Amino acid sequence: MARSVLVSGGCGFLGSHLVDRLLRRDDVEKLVVVDNLWTGTKDNTAHIVDPRFSLQIVDAESFSASDRFDEIIHLASPASPVWYMREPTRTIRANIGGALNLLSLLRPGGRFCFTSTSEVYGDPLVSPQPENYRGSVDCTGPRSSYDESKRCTEALLFEQQRVGDLDVRVVRLFNTYGPRTRIDDGRAVSNFVSQALTTGILTVYGDGSQSRSWGYVDDIVEGLERFFWRDSISHRGPLNIGNNHEVSVLETARFISSLVPGSRIEHHPPTPQDPTNRCPDLTMARRVLPGWEARTGYQDGIARTLEWFRRQIASKQ
Amino acid sequence: MARSVLVSGGCGFLGSHLVDRLLRRDDVEKLVVVDNLWTGTKDNTAHIVDPRFSLQIVDAESFSASDRFDEIIHLASPASPVWYMREPTRTIRANIGGALNLLSLLRPGGRFCFTSTSEVYGDPLVSPQPENYRGSVDCTGPRSSYDESKRCTEALLFEQQRVGDLDVRVVRLFNTYGPRTRIDDGRAVSNFVSQALTTGILTVYGDGSQSRSWGYVDDIVEGLERFFWRDSISHRGPLNIGNNHEVSVLETARFISSLVPGSRIEHHPPTPQDPTNRCPDLTMARRVLPGWEARTGYQDGIARTLEWFRRQIASKQ
Repeated sequence: MARSVLVSGGCGFLGSHLVDRLLRRDDVEKLVVVDNLWTGTKDNTAHIVDPRFSLQIVDAESFSASDRFDEIIHLASPASPVWYMREPTRTIRANIGGALNLLSLLRPGGRFCFTSTSEVYGDPLVSPQPENYRGSVDCTGPRSSYDESKRCTEALLFEQQRVGDLDVRVVRLFNTYGPRTRIDDGRAVSNFVSQALTTGILTVYGDGSQSRSWGYVDDIVEGLERFFWRDSISHRGPLNIGNNHEVSVLETARFISSLVPGSRIEHHPPTPQDPTNRCPDLTMARRVLPGWEARTGYQDGIARTLEWFRRQIASKQ
Repeated sequence: MARSVLVSGGCGFLGSHLVDRLLRRDDVEKLVVVDNLWTGTKDNTAHIVDPRFSLQIVDAESFSASDRFDEIIHLASPASPVWYMREPTRTIRANIGGALNLLSLLRPGGRFCFTSTSEVYGDPLVSPQPENYRGSVDCTGPRSSYDESKRCTEALLFEQQRVGDLDVRVVRLFNTYGPRTRIDDGRAVSNFVSQALTTGILTVYGDGSQSRSWGYVDDIVEGLERFFWRDSISHRGPLNIGNNHEVSVLETARFISSLVPGSRIEHHPPTPQDPTNRCPDLTMARRVLPGWEARTGYQDGIARTLEWFRRQIASKQ
């Protein structure tokens, strides 16, 4: 059956990779990307030549259409603390306002997919974090616009499932990196890579002992594809998607520095409420998505990301 | 200086008591109540004869006005699980959509007051709960529309304080009861009281060992008045406001039953994710609001509430 699909945030880092995979599906007859180009860029979808694809440059919370969609994938939101801390109200509008508006564009019986985040766990007191861990988020803190608007959008969707039998799919993504991240994105891997290639000084906030689980974008999007596009599924989420190999921020910086001769590390004061650790419990993911795994090691993924950033920087000079 | 004030949810149980106190202020020249009468009733403000007062029957998230307000007090939301679990999306819209919209009606430098809830602590793992306890809320659970939309509205306001220097006041209210609660409100005290006076059968969910801290409405509104109306204050919240005398639900039911001869208690299955305990840590409230205390014991407050309900029921027959 021919399906119409809407992706909000489809010009973003993750969204554009997902759009590429959607266009490989034969059953997609229309793919509308809704993006306000706040953190996404037109460059990320500039390679697409496909009559099914169209781009609407508008806020997810304001987009309107006469037709309804069979599948809506709501990714519209900044994902880097630098960006969402700068415009918290806009972040809340994008997530919840976006979800509320887009729900009204879903045809009855349609599917609504949402990319939530490991930030719903806040600074977690258990590791790794299973989906039923309730989290430790300061709902008045400087990261709260992102953390709480993701949490509240989860609430909205699971409550719509409870009272309205909505077909929801919710993933909680752990740190993702790879090609098509903005050079000024501000998250650790992309920051270190672009710093190594430009100023040569990698800024580590705090002592760098805080751990992260870096998921290479191809692996993560493969997980999304398997979860979002399957018609019958035993568990609609929330589902952790990530790489569960934990690495310290300092080790990551050192590895990147080792790839770029002449670069070096500088320590800066810690950022407020930076989580001390972050690692997905993937028990549920293994059960729901048998065979899927984030296979790319961080050394390999970072080397590929570095190459992409190198080409980007060269092409802009 | 003459001030214009907007109260969303001003026809509600708590809101209407607050409106009565606002009208005692000489510096209030205009008081607009915005209420969609979802859980509020016109009866609650029917006694008001004051040229400064006007009522706009409209959703808080849709209200528009040409003038800006000096003070906005945002209470619009159902507060009883029975009501918000029935219409979760509407609950989220009222809280966050309401706050986003009302913020646009605040004059620069104005004050935005918000009634958050002890539900931000979820089913708490510490007791009593201090304001810096991050809570244990299942953001996918059946109470999440209320809990998470209150949490996210707190995030919105404190982030607006951080980036925009907004003058915010946020309280976290613990269980409040008293005259002007709806007869079909569904929360424990009002439920027991109306059941005792009508069917004679008080339904306790589970074994009734779950504890609550019942705050009589006059005490609670006194706390709000002292916190919301003071121009200079050392702490803008979140601030716990409640009575810290913990009573089990069963004990409460027994007491109410003892006041109405012939009534009796029946146990029903527990409601989903009913918190096991709830008690405010009032250390901060004592520091910020010296002299304020929830003085009314539950026996006294319940007796007064029972009298009010008795008159209501009689007047409707």
